[in-house]
Amino acid sequence: MPERSGRHNLDPHLDRYAARTAGMTASEIRALFAVASRPEVVSLAGGMPNLAALPLDSLSAQMAELIAEDGLVALQYGSAQGIPVLREQICEIMALEGISAHADDVVVTVGSQMGLDMVTRIFCDPGDVVIAEGPSYVGALGSFAAYQAQVVHVAMDDDGLVPEALRDALAQAEKAGRRVKFLYTIPNFHNPAGVTLAVERRAEILAICREHGVLVVEDNPYGLLGFDGQTYPALRSLDPENVVYLGSFSKTFASGLRVGWVLAPHAVREKLVLAAESATLCPPTLNQLVVSRYLATHDWKGQIKTFRENYRERRDAILSALEQHMPAGCSWTRPDGGFYVWVTVPEGVDTKAMLPRAVTARVAYASGTGFYADGFGSRQMRVSYCYPTPERIREGVRRLAGVLESEMDLVRTFGNVSMKPISGPENPSPDTA
Amino acid sequence: MPERSGRHNLDPHLDRYAARTAGMTASEIRALFAVASRPEVVSLAGGMPNLAALPLDSLSAQMAELIAEDGLVALQYGSAQGIPVLREQICEIMALEGISAHADDVVVTVGSQMGLDMVTRIFCDPGDVVIAEGPSYVGALGSFAAYQAQVVHVAMDDDGLVPEALRDALAQAEKAGRRVKFLYTIPNFHNPAGVTLAVERRAEILAICREHGVLVVEDNPYGLLGFDGQTYPALRSLDPENVVYLGSFSKTFASGLRVGWVLAPHAVREKLVLAAESATLCPPTLNQLVVSRYLATHDWKGQIKTFRENYRERRDAILSALEQHMPAGCSWTRPDGGFYVWVTVPEGVDTKAMLPRAVTARVAYASGTGFYADGFGSRQMRVSYCYPTPERIREGVRRLAGVLESEMDLVRTFGNVSMKPISGPENPSPDTA
Repeated sequence: MPERSGRHNLDPHLDRYAARTAGMTASEIRALFAVASRPEVVSLAGGMPNLAALPLDSLSAQMAELIAEDGLVALQYGSAQGIPVLREQICEIMALEGISAHADDVVVTVGSQMGLDMVTRIFCDPGDVVIAEGPSYVGALGSFAAYQAQVVHVAMDDDGLVPEALRDALAQAEKAGRRVKFLYTIPNFHNPAGVTLAVERRAEILAICREHGVLVVEDNPYGLLGFDGQTYPALRSLDPENVVYLGSFSKTFASGLRVGWVLAPHAVREKLVLAAESATLCPPTLNQLVVSRYLATHDWKGQIKTFRENYRERRDAILSALEQHMPAGCSWTRPDGGFYVWVTVPEGVDTKAMLPRAVTARVAYASGTGFYADGFGSRQMRVSYCYPTPERIREGVRRLAGVLESEMDLVRTFGNVSMKPISGPENPSPDTA
Repeated sequence: MPERSGRHNLDPHLDRYAARTAGMTASEIRALFAVASRPEVVSLAGGMPNLAALPLDSLSAQMAELIAEDGLVALQYGSAQGIPVLREQICEIMALEGISAHADDVVVTVGSQMGLDMVTRIFCDPGDVVIAEGPSYVGALGSFAAYQAQVVHVAMDDDGLVPEALRDALAQAEKAGRRVKFLYTIPNFHNPAGVTLAVERRAEILAICREHGVLVVEDNPYGLLGFDGQTYPALRSLDPENVVYLGSFSKTFASGLRVGWVLAPHAVREKLVLAAESATLCPPTLNQLVVSRYLATHDWKGQIKTFRENYRERRDAILSALEQHMPAGCSWTRPDGGFYVWVTVPEGVDTKAMLPRAVTARVAYASGTGFYADGFGSRQMRVSYCYPTPERIREGVRRLAGVLESEMDLVRTFGNVSMKPISGPENPSPDTA
C-alpha cells in the first residue's frame, strides 16, 4: 500500500478515511465493558436489561410455532418500513402515553439506535447543531458525531430539561448564525440523569422549539418503566407535527431482538424509509414476527409490570445503599423509573481517573465524561441498578464508597488530583440534576 | 411550522433536511415491488431467494432449543462486532473461496447491505468517487448516494469487469483531480449482469487498484451458488491488505435473518466496529445464534447444493425460454450461478417506459436504469429467475416477448418512443456484457 502522506501510522488506510471517521473513537463505556465483565466485579456500568423474568418456556414454544407455521415469511426479506401488523401493535403501545398515530407513519428499525441514526442521517449536515440535555445518551452522541453534527448541551434539574436554558441555548445559536436541526430529548427516566421532564414543562419546551423552528426528537425507551405504573404524556401526543418519536422493545421485552421504531410526520417518515432501505434493506422479519406474536399472545403488560417491580426493588437497594455508604459531599438523583442514578462527587475528584482504581476494588460505573460531547462530566458518574441483584448492588455501592473515600483523602492531602476544567460555556452543569 | 423559504411544498420539514437527503428517492425496483406483487403477475423483477427447500421442521425445533437453553443470551444485547463463535464459522465458509482470515477481523452486520453502508460511511466524503461496474447493485448505489459519493461506472464484458476500462477510468479521475476511494465489485455471478470476473483477470484488477492507491470492496453474496459447484478465488484471498470483503447468509441460508459480514484489514475493521456501534449498537444476538446453530448442526453445504440445483433448473428454464421467445435483436447474458440475466433490447425500445405495459401484460422485470447512478440502462433490463417456478418463468418470458414485439412494432412505425440519451462519457455501454 503506498503511503501518500509523510505521516507515519500503523494503519496504511489512514489517508483514505472520510472526515467523519476521524471522530470515531471507542466510547468510554465500551472500553469499560471489557474490564467490568469479570465476574468478581460488580458492574454498575452497563445498561443491560434484566431479562431473568422472561417466560423462556413459552417463548421457546412460540418461536417453534412461528417457524413451523410461518417460516417462509419469517426467513424472507420484508419491506423496509416493517411489517404492517407489528406497526399496528406499536400504535396501541404508544396510545398508553397518549399518542394517537397511524401505522403508516411508523418505521420499524434495528433497535431505536438505528432510528436515531436514520433521523440524524436525514436531517444533519456537517456542522449542524443538535441540542441535547447535558448529560445525554452516549449512543446518541455517537450517532451525532458520525454525521459530524455539533452537540450543544442544555442543563437539567430534578424536573428535567430547563426551559429557560433551552431558550438561551437557541438564542445563542441563532445569534452565532448556527443551524439548529433538532432538540434531542429523553423526557422519561433519563439516561443517564435518572430524572423526568415535569409534565407542566412539556408544552413549554414544545412551544420554544416551535417558536425557533426546531424539530423535537423524543427518545422514549423507558416510558413504561415508571415504578408506580405512572406514565407521562409523550411530547409527540402534544405536538404531532413537530415531534419525531423513537420507541424500543429493548427494555420492555428483549434487547437482543433489536426491534425499535420511529414515529414521524408523514413526509419525514417517507425519507426515513428511504434512508433505512440503504442502511439495511429491511429490518429482520423473524424478529418482527417474534415481537408481534409475543404482543398478541402474551400478557405483555403483566410482563412489563414484573420488569418494573424488579427494577423498583433494585432502585430501592441502590438509593438506600447510597444513603448509607456515600461520603459527605456527594449528591445523586432519585429516579422514579428506568435504569440509572446520576451521582455528583465532591470537587477535586475525577471520576474518569478514579475508574481504574474502582475496578481494582471490584466495582465499575460509567464516568460522566462519556455522556457529554466535549469531555465535561468528570465530577459525575452514572450508576445503573438494572442488572445486578439487590445484594450485589449494595455490595457494589459499599465498594464504590470506599474508593471515593480514599480518593477524597488524596484530594484533601494533595489538592485536586485532576487538572480538568469542570465547566465551559456550552456545558451547563448537571450538578443541579 | 414556520416556512422559512418562499418555496411551496407539502412537506413542512423540507428546509430542514440534510443535503444528502435530497438525493433519496424511491428506487425504481422498490416502486415496482408493489405492482409486481399481485399474484397474476409473473415477477422476474425481484431478488428474493427461493427458500422453499429449507428444512422448516428442524429449524423450528432448533429455534425452540436455542431459546430454552440459551434464551437469556439470545435475547440480550451483544457486542457490536458480533458473537465470536459465528465469526469463527464465517472464516470456515470464506475458506471455501481461498480466504485465510482471522475471526478477529470479521464484523457481523445486519445483512451485507449494512456492511456496504458502514464501508461507505468510514471511507466516503461527499464528492469522493466510487468506481463500480456498469451496471451495479442497486442497493450499493443507494448507499453511495446516501453518503453523497459519486459513482463512475466501468464496463463489463462476458468475463466481467474490463481491466483496460478500469485503468482508463482511474486515469481519467486522477487527471480530473478527483479522489477515488474504492472499487466496488461483485466478481461472482454479478447482480444484475449475471457475469463472472474471469480468474485470469483477478490479479490484474487487483494490481491496477494497488497501483492507483485504490481500495477494493468485494461484494460476494452469490459466490457459493455456482451451478456446477464451482468456486472462484476471492479477490480477498489474493490481496488481503487491500480488499474489504462483504459476505452474506441471505442467499445461502435465510435473508429474513439479516445476517451478513465484513472482513477487513485490521485497522479498517476497528473503524467498522465503531461505525456499526453508532448505527445499531449491535446486530441481533438471536439471529446470530440461529445462524451459528444452523451451521453447527445442519448439513449446510448440502442445503446450498439443493439451493444451487433449484436455481440451475430455473436458469435453464429462463435461458431456453429467452431463446425460444425473444424477438431478434435482443441479447442477454448466460449466468453460471446466481440469480440474474441481463437483457439488452433493440435500439429505440425504452425498458423503463415499457414497464407499465409489461405489468399490464402480467409480467414484471427491473428496468436497467435502476442499476446505474445516472439514468443509463434504458435499453437493458434485469430478469431474475430465482423465485418463480420454472413453469411461471417460461410463461413470464413468453409474455415479456409479446410485450417487446408490440413495442418494437411501435418503434418501427413511429420511430424511437423514447428520447433518452443512451450513452454518456462516464457510462460505458453494458451492451458487451
